[in-house]
Amino acid sequence: MADLNKPVVIRGVTLGGGDGPLICTSLVGRTRDELLAELGQIVSFEPDLIEWRVDFYSGIADRNGVLGLSADLARVSRGIPLIFTVRSAREGGEAISLGDEQVASLCVEACETRAFGLIDFELTAPRDGLDRVRAAARATDTGLILSFHDFAGTPDGELLHAKFGEAKELGGDVAKVAVMPHSVDDVLTLLRASHRAYESFDMPLITMSMGPLGVLTRVAGWMFGSSVSFAVGAASSAPGQLPIEDLRAGLAVLRKALEGA
Amino acid sequence: MADLNKPVVIRGVTLGGGDGPLICTSLVGRTRDELLAELGQIVSFEPDLIEWRVDFYSGIADRNGVLGLSADLARVSRGIPLIFTVRSAREGGEAISLGDEQVASLCVEACETRAFGLIDFELTAPRDGLDRVRAAARATDTGLILSFHDFAGTPDGELLHAKFGEAKELGGDVAKVAVMPHSVDDVLTLLRASHRAYESFDMPLITMSMGPLGVLTRVAGWMFGSSVSFAVGAASSAPGQLPIEDLRAGLAVLRKALEGA
Repeated sequence: MADLNKPVVIRGVTLGGGDGPLICTSLVGRTRDELLAELGQIVSFEPDLIEWRVDFYSGIADRNGVLGLSADLARVSRGIPLIFTVRSAREGGEAISLGDEQVASLCVEACETRAFGLIDFELTAPRDGLDRVRAAARATDTGLILSFHDFAGTPDGELLHAKFGEAKELGGDVAKVAVMPHSVDDVLTLLRASHRAYESFDMPLITMSMGPLGVLTRVAGWMFGSSVSFAVGAASSAPGQLPIEDLRAGLAVLRKALEGA
Repeated sequence: MADLNKPVVIRGVTLGGGDGPLICTSLVGRTRDELLAELGQIVSFEPDLIEWRVDFYSGIADRNGVLGLSADLARVSRGIPLIFTVRSAREGGEAISLGDEQVASLCVEACETRAFGLIDFELTAPRDGLDRVRAAARATDTGLILSFHDFAGTPDGELLHAKFGEAKELGGDVAKVAVMPHSVDDVLTLLRASHRAYESFDMPLITMSMGPLGVLTRVAGWMFGSSVSFAVGAASSAPGQLPIEDLRAGLAVLRKALEGA
């Protein structure tokens, strides 16, 4: 039962890949003070990964401020790897004043701070930006998550499979796919596509059905190949996330049942 | 979110149909003393339903003994409805000395004791036996569960759908389908077939993927239309059953997440 998801390798360190997902919580503070307080709180929950959702940060347009804060967050995170994420408004993020090219440049510079173990970049972003970010990620040994989000619905299995394939083809180290279900059948579509991608592509996956209906995928998605589950630390960054203690309780039930397998 | 499974009506009393499955535990004692002790223990867990797996009972060939014990169990069950089940060896039950016709006769007489809220009868049993049991169930207001088990594997979705349809067509009040997964894809096949049957047939369903891989269906099958989940009371009656307190912990996590929906 140790082969239900793939380990995530960050700077040569292997995380996960066994009897459950890595747990990631997101920082959604709007100010430097909020972020540092939030990080202190989240670190006490001991997640495996911490994502900085930079689109929530009100100072995002101040390049030097973002880079300085990056170093500060890394110092406070007590060795828990950080993910740098600027989620675009078109994929469910906060509205920001930066254009696509500026976001790519910020991501390049974030890699260069070496404060982040992983960086998230969207498959729908212009390709030249992706090329620059991939090069910077490679040069700085930062893991590249190539991501796809659909907050409106769940595409069919073929399209989902194509998104995983695109992330692989474009040089992602990890593929992330997050979609919104309108029925329990949509939840099954996401789980089946995850497992198909798990069997097809030699890379770790992060997959989820969002919203209340998708709660199942946050607790059990790892059985279908998803290596990471996002949980609420201080505040939710997407609909359907469970509080970290609830996620752990749900995982414990599944793990115990699977132990004998 | 109150329409994810269908209520089970037993003797005019409606059970379930809301924010989770009914929880059923099975009695697997081999002697009268064991059964009465086991029932006392199980009652303290307050399940919604209690199944007597009569194929485990060493005295099954003593008709009057079985009928007398039925009345005794009903007296001790503190109003929790009992299910009378003689699982055949061909569907994963214990080896017994009774033939199909004798099993059908025993089921008819069990209905007539009026000790049972529900009776389980297998779709693979000869049809004349089923006709007799259905008539007795109707006459005594005992709910008829028509069941199908595959301990070797998971048939494809079409065959599973046909089994649900057969249970409906043959006059079952509840359809039960329990199958063994060999992969997580098999688990998804069972869940998808459950939801399809839920949308197709106006009857409560009991469905599960067995074994460790199927644990997900025991916790979340109700979201796909299954009205009952079997849990371990004193001892397991089928592979993959969770201890009742673990099932409740898992259900609590899902319920909390779904509350806002």
